[in-house]
Amino acid sequence: MRMTIDVAMHYRVAEPTTAFLAIEAARTEGQVVLSETLDLGTAQPSRIAGDSGVGERLWLQLPGDDLRITYRAEVEVNRQVAGLGQLAAVPLHRIPGDVAPYLRPSRYCQSDKFVTFVGRQFAGREGGAKVAAIRDWIERELSYVPGSSDADTNVLETFAGRQGVCRDYAHLMCSMVRAASIPARMVAAYGPDVTPQDFHAVAQVWLEDGWHLVDATGMCAADGLAVIAVGRDAYDIAFLDTWAPVELVSQEVYARRT
Amino acid sequence: MRMTIDVAMHYRVAEPTTAFLAIEAARTEGQVVLSETLDLGTAQPSRIAGDSGVGERLWLQLPGDDLRITYRAEVEVNRQVAGLGQLAAVPLHRIPGDVAPYLRPSRYCQSDKFVTFVGRQFAGREGGAKVAAIRDWIERELSYVPGSSDADTNVLETFAGRQGVCRDYAHLMCSMVRAASIPARMVAAYGPDVTPQDFHAVAQVWLEDGWHLVDATGMCAADGLAVIAVGRDAYDIAFLDTWAPVELVSQEVYARRT
Amino acid sequence: MRMTIDVAMHYRVAEPTTAFLAIEAARTEGQVVLSETLDLGTAQPSRIAGDSGVGERLWLQLPGDDLRITYRAEVEVNRQVAGLGQLAAVPLHRIPGDVAPYLRPSRYCQSDKFVTFVGRQFAGREGGAKVAAIRDWIERELSYVPGSSDADTNVLETFAGRQGVCRDYAHLMCSMVRAASIPARMVAAYGPDVTPQDFHAVAQVWLEDGWHLVDATGMCAADGLAVIAVGRDAYDIAFLDTWAPVELVSQEVYARRT
Amino acid sequence: MRMTIDVAMHYRVAEPTTAFLAIEAARTEGQVVLSETLDLGTAQPSRIAGDSGVGERLWLQLPGDDLRITYRAEVEVNRQVAGLGQLAAVPLHRIPGDVAPYLRPSRYCQSDKFVTFVGRQFAGREGGAKVAAIRDWIERELSYVPGSSDADTNVLETFAGRQGVCRDYAHLMCSMVRAASIPARMVAAYGPDVTPQDFHAVAQVWLEDGWHLVDATGMCAADGLAVIAVGRDAYDIAFLDTWAPVELVSQEVYARRT
Repeated sequence: MRMTIDVAMHYRVAEPTTAFLAIEAARTEGQVVLSETLDLGTAQPSRIAGDSGVGERLWLQLPGDDLRITYRAEVEVNRQVAGLGQLAAVPLHRIPGDVAPYLRPSRYCQSDKFVTFVGRQFAGREGGAKVAAIRDWIERELSYVPGSSDADTNVLETFAGRQGVCRDYAHLMCSMVRAASIPARMVAAYGPDVTPQDFHAVAQVWLEDGWHLVDATGMCAADGLAVIAVGRDAYDIAFLDTWAPVELVSQEVYARRT
Repeated sequence: MRMTIDVAMHYRVAEPTTAFLAIEAARTEGQVVLSETLDLGTAQPSRIAGDSGVGERLWLQLPGDDLRITYRAEVEVNRQVAGLGQLAAVPLHRIPGDVAPYLRPSRYCQSDKFVTFVGRQFAGREGGAKVAAIRDWIERELSYVPGSSDADTNVLETFAGRQGVCRDYAHLMCSMVRAASIPARMVAAYGPDVTPQDFHAVAQVWLEDGWHLVDATGMCAADGLAVIAVGRDAYDIAFLDTWAPVELVSQEVYARRT
Repeated sequence: MRMTIDVAMHYRVAEPTTAFLAIEAARTEGQVVLSETLDLGTAQPSRIAGDSGVGERLWLQLPGDDLRITYRAEVEVNRQVAGLGQLAAVPLHRIPGDVAPYLRPSRYCQSDKFVTFVGRQFAGREGGAKVAAIRDWIERELSYVPGSSDADTNVLETFAGRQGVCRDYAHLMCSMVRAASIPARMVAAYGPDVTPQDFHAVAQVWLEDGWHLVDATGMCAADGLAVIAVGRDAYDIAFLDTWAPVELVSQEVYARRT
Repeated sequence: MRMTIDVAMHYRVAEPTTAFLAIEAARTEGQVVLSETLDLGTAQPSRIAGDSGVGERLWLQLPGDDLRITYRAEVEVNRQVAGLGQLAAVPLHRIPGDVAPYLRPSRYCQSDKFVTFVGRQFAGREGGAKVAAIRDWIERELSYVPGSSDADTNVLETFAGRQGVCRDYAHLMCSMVRAASIPARMVAAYGPDVTPQDFHAVAQVWLEDGWHLVDATGMCAADGLAVIAVGRDAYDIAFLDTWAPVELVSQEVYARRT
């Protein structure tokens, strides 16, 4: 599938500061960036590797005026979409060092609290079949309610509250999958099927020695997503972090099949 | 039902301090204290009314040595045990001023987080039928695991963790019932059917203009409980609070049918 | 001091529901309601006593249309303003049953966590002098930042974050004072010196066998406040609770010396 | 400085399970492992890289009987101990991709909550001078109280509670330093000056393009520590994780200068 991505961001910046940007489609397994243009206006960039070596991030030195960014890319998504239910679990003792951290809790994902629930609710299933059952459970049990969570909402609140947006679905996915002793990480992505169009958050699970995309909101298939960045949870994949207050003027994200 | 209660407590107190004691069976609706003796050793008591006027509590001024308390009481429990499922809800606008606070969240019971879950999971039921369904759900979903919670465990952790002891069952009961817009409070009680014997915690729900005892652990029927104290959650019904560290030497609680 | 209070509220109510209203100046110690008018539009009220018997609250049955409320009152505030620093602590064993609950933690006020800090930071002071030192510390250490907290913000976050609005100042006041073994409760009030004009939240502390108002924001003196309601924390003193979503159209609160 | 480390662990394992072990002194900057022996008894190991490539961890497949581990190593610690106060901060835009995650919050370290406090309390200092001031503040403000925290204690509770053990000191250090926009990570280490002898937790801060050890408990100097593992917080540096309950029989950790 070929996808065209258009992003236009405009923020007002009160004082000179630094920003951390993660909006470029990653050059990573399962997708090819055919072309891209990034216009950062007056911001001074330094480019670094993303978490776990996936994609790149940009440090931006911002003079104290408007931050205007436009990004356009054409991405060929060519990943194989495995039947999740058929994928085998990787035994713990074969999980490599760079994957093992994704077994553990994080700022928003107190996965340690879900071991009993996951063990009982999804008993009798292993590996991909267990992940698929968790995914289905989350999609069924949560309601997608814009505005129902904020930057403080953790997964204990989401699990009780049964509401959220894509970040909350992905947080609960990561938490329950980790509680099942399967590595899971958070992914920022673009997807033409995201409604309404915006930056999207999904999960990746480690099965059969590879990462597999899973969208618990049910919006996007694994081959309908262009990965931007990965990390332990929402804090690690923010599209924009700044070290001084900034004010949103406008932001448009638009991904479409082409 | 007639119940005999025997309590023997022995604590070591490092320095002169104050303690707050709630161990006497309350002279309250549905139970009659036929006889009782309370031996406080060298502690100096002052007697005050319990929360919501249920029972009494004792302030104890402790000299800095051993605190030894023995309590014996014979209690006639004569409350009517209503069929919970038949009890009607009280419309919100008829909930009196001294009951209304029990609609609200408390230290351990973030009942505000459960509104969506309770609304959906127990849809179509009202009043006592809804309370009964919540009670059954909690008994089925939680595992009684001694040591699985501590004085910091709140109900969001219990709901995710699916484990607890009587305080956690009662906290979840209070939280979900409040989320259903029905007043619920925490109750400390004695019960001959508590296993192993100890101070017990259950819930009371406000239906048909009265408080009704509900034990989500399934251990005790409403007419097998002698109420000691009530409050918003575990903090309000502690059998012993002290204002300096004390060390447990021994404690025995024993309630039996007589 | 004589105060005139004007409140005008306009909410849009999507469906028939119930609301809980606490906006009337209480007929309580230290203030006399000289005159008042309350217009509830089409809402059907039932009147009940407020928490701890302070003031009254109204249950409102709302038809599914606009909720318009206007309230006007003239209040004579005649409470003696004691020099806080001179007020003696009440020994624990003389704290009465209806005051003792205000020694304990609540939904937003994990006062149990502050015992060590308060013991050390305010060592050597007792009673009112300790309360005054706590008040000064809070006013100095916190910044008043509108929008820096929300309905989920608890006092651990406020203490670390060092920002908040009146509710957060009062929460921290209640938490630290309780940690000093002095009863403290949350108070909703009107005050001509509140800037900008709105419902205000302050604390009341129990010293010398009475409740004394303390405003950690520094905006209002005890004799510049008309008490509406009291409770354990913000949940207990909300001016408006509703059982279905409502949308704010406009709200004006205006208190002035007259 | 040369250090000899002796560890003897004995756990009872109820059923066959997997464990994750981090007890070997890392072959990393500033220390040389001169000799080591590791006896894992009947456990089957697989060796992987530690978080951020520091040291190695072992997956152990445990048969369901006793887990007995002995580890002995001789380590030459040869790191330069910089004067912390003289080290310059690294500008944000020069922080590399593998260091940037250590600017962010984690399971136990809600560093995002401390930005205002740290900004104000340590104003006027930068880089190492700021880190040193934070370290001194933590050592002064916290009391080292064994048993005052558990595996659930997060840094908001530690900051309010003012008590903890080495993990809590290191968590607060990481949180405040991250809040100052300086990368900080958690380190498990051995140290002859740890009292009483046990696995120790300290922080590492990123200054002048390198990681520098800081022990907020004041027990150990940077050249008195042998690093085992690093990570975002306590969850990442546990010396032993198991996937089924195990029972401690005995554990001895002993590091001494030789």
